[in-house]
Amino acid sequence: MAFELRKYTPPDFETEDLRSAPDARLVPAPADGVAPEGFHAMSIFPEYFRLGGRWLLAEESRMDCVPVLEDGRIAVREFRHLKKGDPVVCGRTENGEDGIFVHADGFAEAAGQRENFAFRTGRSRETSFTRDYDELRELLRYERENGKIVWVLGPAFTFDSGARDAFARLVAGGYVHALLAGNALATHDLEGAYLGTALGQDIYTQESRPNGHYNHLDTINRVRGCGSVAAFIEDERLEDGIIASCEKYGVPYVLAGSIRDDGPLPCVIGSAYEAQDAMRAQVKSATTVICMATMLHSIAVGNMTPSYRVTADGTVRQIYFYCVDIAEFTVNKLADRGSLAAKGIVTNVQDFIKQLAEGLGV
Amino acid sequence: MAFELRKYTPPDFETEDLRSAPDARLVPAPADGVAPEGFHAMSIFPEYFRLGGRWLLAEESRMDCVPVLEDGRIAVREFRHLKKGDPVVCGRTENGEDGIFVHADGFAEAAGQRENFAFRTGRSRETSFTRDYDELRELLRYERENGKIVWVLGPAFTFDSGARDAFARLVAGGYVHALLAGNALATHDLEGAYLGTALGQDIYTQESRPNGHYNHLDTINRVRGCGSVAAFIEDERLEDGIIASCEKYGVPYVLAGSIRDDGPLPCVIGSAYEAQDAMRAQVKSATTVICMATMLHSIAVGNMTPSYRVTADGTVRQIYFYCVDIAEFTVNKLADRGSLAAKGIVTNVQDFIKQLAEGLGV
Amino acid sequence: MAFELRKYTPPDFETEDLRSAPDARLVPAPADGVAPEGFHAMSIFPEYFRLGGRWLLAEESRMDCVPVLEDGRIAVREFRHLKKGDPVVCGRTENGEDGIFVHADGFAEAAGQRENFAFRTGRSRETSFTRDYDELRELLRYERENGKIVWVLGPAFTFDSGARDAFARLVAGGYVHALLAGNALATHDLEGAYLGTALGQDIYTQESRPNGHYNHLDTINRVRGCGSVAAFIEDERLEDGIIASCEKYGVPYVLAGSIRDDGPLPCVIGSAYEAQDAMRAQVKSATTVICMATMLHSIAVGNMTPSYRVTADGTVRQIYFYCVDIAEFTVNKLADRGSLAAKGIVTNVQDFIKQLAEGLGV
Amino acid sequence: MAFELRKYTPPDFETEDLRSAPDARLVPAPADGVAPEGFHAMSIFPEYFRLGGRWLLAEESRMDCVPVLEDGRIAVREFRHLKKGDPVVCGRTENGEDGIFVHADGFAEAAGQRENFAFRTGRSRETSFTRDYDELRELLRYERENGKIVWVLGPAFTFDSGARDAFARLVAGGYVHALLAGNALATHDLEGAYLGTALGQDIYTQESRPNGHYNHLDTINRVRGCGSVAAFIEDERLEDGIIASCEKYGVPYVLAGSIRDDGPLPCVIGSAYEAQDAMRAQVKSATTVICMATMLHSIAVGNMTPSYRVTADGTVRQIYFYCVDIAEFTVNKLADRGSLAAKGIVTNVQDFIKQLAEGLGV
Repeated sequence: MAFELRKYTPPDFETEDLRSAPDARLVPAPADGVAPEGFHAMSIFPEYFRLGGRWLLAEESRMDCVPVLEDGRIAVREFRHLKKGDPVVCGRTENGEDGIFVHADGFAEAAGQRENFAFRTGRSRETSFTRDYDELRELLRYERENGKIVWVLGPAFTFDSGARDAFARLVAGGYVHALLAGNALATHDLEGAYLGTALGQDIYTQESRPNGHYNHLDTINRVRGCGSVAAFIEDERLEDGIIASCEKYGVPYVLAGSIRDDGPLPCVIGSAYEAQDAMRAQVKSATTVICMATMLHSIAVGNMTPSYRVTADGTVRQIYFYCVDIAEFTVNKLADRGSLAAKGIVTNVQDFIKQLAEGLGV
Repeated sequence: MAFELRKYTPPDFETEDLRSAPDARLVPAPADGVAPEGFHAMSIFPEYFRLGGRWLLAEESRMDCVPVLEDGRIAVREFRHLKKGDPVVCGRTENGEDGIFVHADGFAEAAGQRENFAFRTGRSRETSFTRDYDELRELLRYERENGKIVWVLGPAFTFDSGARDAFARLVAGGYVHALLAGNALATHDLEGAYLGTALGQDIYTQESRPNGHYNHLDTINRVRGCGSVAAFIEDERLEDGIIASCEKYGVPYVLAGSIRDDGPLPCVIGSAYEAQDAMRAQVKSATTVICMATMLHSIAVGNMTPSYRVTADGTVRQIYFYCVDIAEFTVNKLADRGSLAAKGIVTNVQDFIKQLAEGLGV
Repeated sequence: MAFELRKYTPPDFETEDLRSAPDARLVPAPADGVAPEGFHAMSIFPEYFRLGGRWLLAEESRMDCVPVLEDGRIAVREFRHLKKGDPVVCGRTENGEDGIFVHADGFAEAAGQRENFAFRTGRSRETSFTRDYDELRELLRYERENGKIVWVLGPAFTFDSGARDAFARLVAGGYVHALLAGNALATHDLEGAYLGTALGQDIYTQESRPNGHYNHLDTINRVRGCGSVAAFIEDERLEDGIIASCEKYGVPYVLAGSIRDDGPLPCVIGSAYEAQDAMRAQVKSATTVICMATMLHSIAVGNMTPSYRVTADGTVRQIYFYCVDIAEFTVNKLADRGSLAAKGIVTNVQDFIKQLAEGLGV
Repeated sequence: MAFELRKYTPPDFETEDLRSAPDARLVPAPADGVAPEGFHAMSIFPEYFRLGGRWLLAEESRMDCVPVLEDGRIAVREFRHLKKGDPVVCGRTENGEDGIFVHADGFAEAAGQRENFAFRTGRSRETSFTRDYDELRELLRYERENGKIVWVLGPAFTFDSGARDAFARLVAGGYVHALLAGNALATHDLEGAYLGTALGQDIYTQESRPNGHYNHLDTINRVRGCGSVAAFIEDERLEDGIIASCEKYGVPYVLAGSIRDDGPLPCVIGSAYEAQDAMRAQVKSATTVICMATMLHSIAVGNMTPSYRVTADGTVRQIYFYCVDIAEFTVNKLADRGSLAAKGIVTNVQDFIKQLAEGLGV
């Protein structure tokens, strides 16, 4: 089964309804960080705005953010990034009557799939997942050559030596193009590389080391002393694990700070909103996103990932979004928020990643 | 890493305390199915009873059941199997003072492990499981030649084509020596072999078949019409799946009835207590037990599985007990009931079995 | 808010389609316990069968069972209860074209509610439940006078003294008309009344009693010695708890045996299928069913509970079905099986029952 | 049952071991934000440091942070707050041999309780919670007069009208002295006050409003337009809910930003570490902390809450820490991290808070 992208069918703007649609209404933002009343908010689907008689596609969308006309294009802005006077599209219909057209059916098969999905009313531990593994494997082979694969990792992902090694092999194999995580994931992973433990427990034998609760603090303190993760890795000649592999293969990673952090590590972005910006900078070019074992980061990234991407040559393609977690609650949470394109896999991420790496032959 | 059984160290009966221990007190059961007041109840550990000055080991134990002297040996009986007048051991101490000695430390390393386990206070999705897979793989290779591997399966196990195939390969490979399950597991599995679905959904493509909710009923009805599962499999020339494989390779399976059953299939044991007896008949010679995706059957089998086995040549060896489930609650439930020897793995059983089969090269 | 039943609107049999519908096809069962090929299976909805030119409603339905013409009425039989030659309705359409009409929209508001439900794709811990409590309270007040309230309890329900007391007050207050449970629920509850513990732990202070793991066995053994639960309660002058209250107020209870049982208690029905029959005998007149903290019994009872009831005076009314569990998986399981009329509440049943009893003023 | 604080027993510094203990070793921090090698890290227990021959208690402790001598007292600093040259206590023993004494048994009964707790290996849905409710009620009555009660709320807490009202009544009743939460909790709550919905669903009827997915964005945008939450509440004359109640009764609240935020609201602290500082400023005087329905905030606050508090008059008292969540995983997570003093209650927080408010008569 060779992987093939679904073809995108743009809207037919020659229908009577859309031909007679008015221009979208633009209203200046009344103050910095504030949208005008009646502002339009984006969905995950391709949306077109009629302006000057032409339909403009928002090329880099983000759910729940606001379309702004900028240099003849539609930019999609977070509220906090609005500037007073920015011309914001207003209107809350989706069928063109206000010059706004939301194109939910652009990927024909996708529509079919959605129907199926609805039938199941969410995925559970009892869903049959073998086909999803098969499809994902083919997808990743395609994306390694043609796309950008962004991974989002929860802190506990790196507690198991096998999972950690599998991910490092995926990095080495070219299947990881960006990593989004937090201070804890990086700390635990570096503790593994430095001392062989995570929170003081051996990541293979499960044995607790004497005074092992110091291990993550010692790791953080050493990194802070070295001044950077890269310097620490070099000083200590670390080779294994997620972060060391990213450093070695030049994979960019964004570490967002959180209120539960110790330390933090030097490169962690303390501001939630600067972290959002840094994450969106990676997601803006992503074609496949895989979230594992994190609700916070999955929702954060899910919110900023639309269902489509406009590629360099102007074609519109689908974005694939996977959420892998042992809790149905987490997996189904994204669907509840409107990210219907998300595909959930309910399992322990350790097994998911080991099986995926095995299937990809890395 | 070649697998080696832990050595069993019998109690030292020459200590002062045990040398001076009295004979255990035997009291006749006052009525059928009723134990005398003060009856002793068994744990999962090897227990010795002093009778006529000699220490007798209960050779086929079962937690919460009652030791009875029978033909010079200690039999362990469910309450419902007691007969009026049966000589029941009474006494509730464990250190020999009542002629009863519970030997919790017979498997030295086991004791060490228990300590570790206690530290973790239960296993969770975040436990590192790679080592458990490695050990289990070695264990199963050993047991294929030297032991008896009993599998306990919940109904949803067979919803995924890949998991079903992996289990069938384990049967073919000699890693399955008995199967304990219920009407639903067998029905879903035979529906898969017969119609390619489970509860009407394709077990690979996840698609719902038109009128697919009839599929399990049609399957059950056909089997009932054929008179037996074996006749049905032959008539329909079924080859794949769990039950067909067991039939093909002569692996005994016990299907216990439950109040949620449709049908049932002809060979299902409707009486919960006859089903218990049939299950215990298989467990009595088991050396490794693996429970997957079922709380009811896991607890039932856990209750009837002691921590040790007396083999044909009289040596005492450990029984290995695994409980694999996506819910920590299920996995940790057994430990709460005293089955400390149980090892829990928290994951989706689909991934567990596929990875295990892959690791065993089947 | 006074509670009012939804009005049932029967099908309009005068539409062109239904007027021209043929009689349903009857085919004799080919053997005991076997349905003819193409048999019809029941849904949870009211179903009408055209026979001799008249439309007959199946008055006591049960999902996945088979309609049989018997004495001019439609009986609904489990497969195992079919007799060779029984005239079974065949046909798998629902719109009348085969003389079978499934009436899914008889309770108008219900249809509207279903739509809403679909939007949520299942209930979760984050669903707002205050309205459900308010409605349930009004419903129970109505049903105490006009209906039959059947409760289904999982074994752990009785571990908490407060929950146990609340349920006993509901029994005393007239809100419990039948109880369906298993050996474990009754054993734990009687242990509570007899020794103040459940599995050896104090049901209020949470303290473990010395040698407390004998408590449930001593309780079972005493009951078996007394010959019956009633005799045990009288002998020991027990007053509190679920079972003692049912005995005191003459509330019938069915205890189904299972493979995890110790004992069992004398009145437990060992055969899964005889237990099903005894349960259905209670459910056949139920108008509200509330399942708490049990997946096995919830599914079993859910399968045998249709969405409607024909009352003594021939009117058709809705059956209310609640499933209360801390796990979304359990709560949503019933919906996946087609029991769309079920309403799920995701919480700890201890708090549910205490709050409900408080609200009802008992 | 009138509530009484447990008495604190200070260590006996006159034992031979402690009398002969050396002074603790102080090493200057080698750089800003970096601790010297061998630094000591704090536990949740009272810790004493021998300096100049006297034992100094760290008065405001925080797990995994570093003791620093400052103006003759022991300050406990996050790594990021260390300044080059700060005299940091080094040493990793706990029995005094390095001049460091960790006093884990200061609250006698607490020690006894811990043992019990260990037996249960964590709390589950099946733990009996009635006593915990009783104790908590008495505790809160005591703390209203004598302590400081800090509440930590997850975002979904305010989805239910009844839970929201109950919390508002607790605020009005004087049982809430500080609130720690995030942008989402405040947004959902203000949406409830402003539009009667949470994420577009009516918080009582559960009905979805047309275009309701705009409601939280409209709320955020309005607040941003008003310039502050207080101005918004005044402008819109809002009265109900959590945030409006806190504003009305002058209860301080800290809203920490996160990467999943929309907006954010004006008063949200975007920096994770400034948010930590603001949270700790509240926690520093807390005597009871109650976390509901949030893993992120529970862990964050759990990490910064020691087991004791030194009150204004110099006495040492216990801090009570509750974690209420429907997931055992969350509830037990804190214990795994060493916060053994935490008491978990496994239930839906809606029911918890309604029952608690009812019990307190507000």
